[in-house]
Amino acid sequence: MTGVLLTVAYDGTEFSGWATQRDARTVEDALRGALLAVDPKAAGPRGSSRTDAGVHAEGQLAAFDASLPLPARGWVLALNQHLPDDVSVRAAQIVTPDYNPRFTSKKKRYRYRLLLDKVRDPLLRHRTWRIGYEMDLERLAREARAIVGTHDFKAFRSAGDERDVTTRTIHDVTVRRDGEDARCWSITIEGNAFLYNMVRILVGTLVDVARGHLPEGTIARALDEKDRARAGQTAPAHGLTLEHIDVDLPEEAGERWPP
Amino acid sequence: MTGVLLTVAYDGTEFSGWATQRDARTVEDALRGALLAVDPKAAGPRGSSRTDAGVHAEGQLAAFDASLPLPARGWVLALNQHLPDDVSVRAAQIVTPDYNPRFTSKKKRYRYRLLLDKVRDPLLRHRTWRIGYEMDLERLAREARAIVGTHDFKAFRSAGDERDVTTRTIHDVTVRRDGEDARCWSITIEGNAFLYNMVRILVGTLVDVARGHLPEGTIARALDEKDRARAGQTAPAHGLTLEHIDVDLPEEAGERWPP
Repeated sequence: MTGVLLTVAYDGTEFSGWATQRDARTVEDALRGALLAVDPKAAGPRGSSRTDAGVHAEGQLAAFDASLPLPARGWVLALNQHLPDDVSVRAAQIVTPDYNPRFTSKKKRYRYRLLLDKVRDPLLRHRTWRIGYEMDLERLAREARAIVGTHDFKAFRSAGDERDVTTRTIHDVTVRRDGEDARCWSITIEGNAFLYNMVRILVGTLVDVARGHLPEGTIARALDEKDRARAGQTAPAHGLTLEHIDVDLPEEAGERWPP
Repeated sequence: MTGVLLTVAYDGTEFSGWATQRDARTVEDALRGALLAVDPKAAGPRGSSRTDAGVHAEGQLAAFDASLPLPARGWVLALNQHLPDDVSVRAAQIVTPDYNPRFTSKKKRYRYRLLLDKVRDPLLRHRTWRIGYEMDLERLAREARAIVGTHDFKAFRSAGDERDVTTRTIHDVTVRRDGEDARCWSITIEGNAFLYNMVRILVGTLVDVARGHLPEGTIARALDEKDRARAGQTAPAHGLTLEHIDVDLPEEAGERWPP
């Protein structure tokens, strides 16, 4: 068997998230279906990050073990033939058997898109969280600084996350205009790892602070008190995109296609 | 009755275009349904431009006559309550009864989005035409200059357009990177009026020239010979957005909301 690492993009709108669930349409199952259609003896996929229903990805990673000796380009083309329109393999790279991007991940980048508009916009409805009330974006950017660094993010996870270690390192948070549309802003958060719903609770809290619903200093206080009740709302899933995951690759890894 | 002018946005993906057709889901019918739900005596809507199935709009205009004395803001909020997710009223303005934006239109702007990528991207599939082969974008921009000016565009319309006068004035064509994504380009075309499928045939021809499939000078030659067979392919509908329509307003027109 050969290990193959895939970069996977999806429009999360019509999926019940990444991970296989009974009676639900998931990205993992769609990818498994395509793998087995091309290579019935393939084993996998092994995804790097679970994403919730509605969350999008440009840079999800998933590995599998192949019995067919296709080159990276062959996997991209063959799998895309069998995937539905709302998922695609963006790139592939030959790695080692049993390679699992869940255990080699070093850094992840998420982007959350806001649409500041009094009126809804059908063309951006699946990609942005529309905020209809006044927001103080400088206040938002000031509050966002408290996120950077190594902290116990226990206050910023949803029930269902049972992990004992809740300390994570956030390397960078950027708040900026998104493209040429003055209504669009994005919050990019890069860190070593994330708790369940952590980005969405951080963004929800930033928005609550920016609209004056919660005071400045809320994030620092919630980190300090490690209390979910101190943080703000959970931002909706559809504004979130998993943009990029940095992994350690085995020395034997081949070239990525497309480069 | 009072005339009301609406700016309408829609995601054209799930619509069979603007204009009412039997047994098809159209934007005009969706808007009529919302109008009648709010004001059962309303008459309209009267749209400014027909758009094909899959074509999007940010700035479609439509007018109707209302029996209810709502202010502009009231119409925006009330109609959006009754419209499906993929259409919205972006703005409203009180005008005069019987006002018809089809007859007062002075200038229209369309934008066509290209995605230059070897591999498909699910997140951009409904908004862009993906071009997987090599394109010479400087060649495309040079060829685009031939479009500007007053020409007989008979070669650039689809069968079904029976209008006798086929001369139109194109004020401006812009080819540029679209946003921060290096793969995204857009072609913006502004003119006094357009023939059926004119933008899509112009864009298809530009792409055929840019990939070397047709020689430079194709557009000038097709304009000269007024022969559809001289022009290139018709670009797919889903890359096209009707961005803006400039109209003459009656002197009595009220303020637009939102401003």
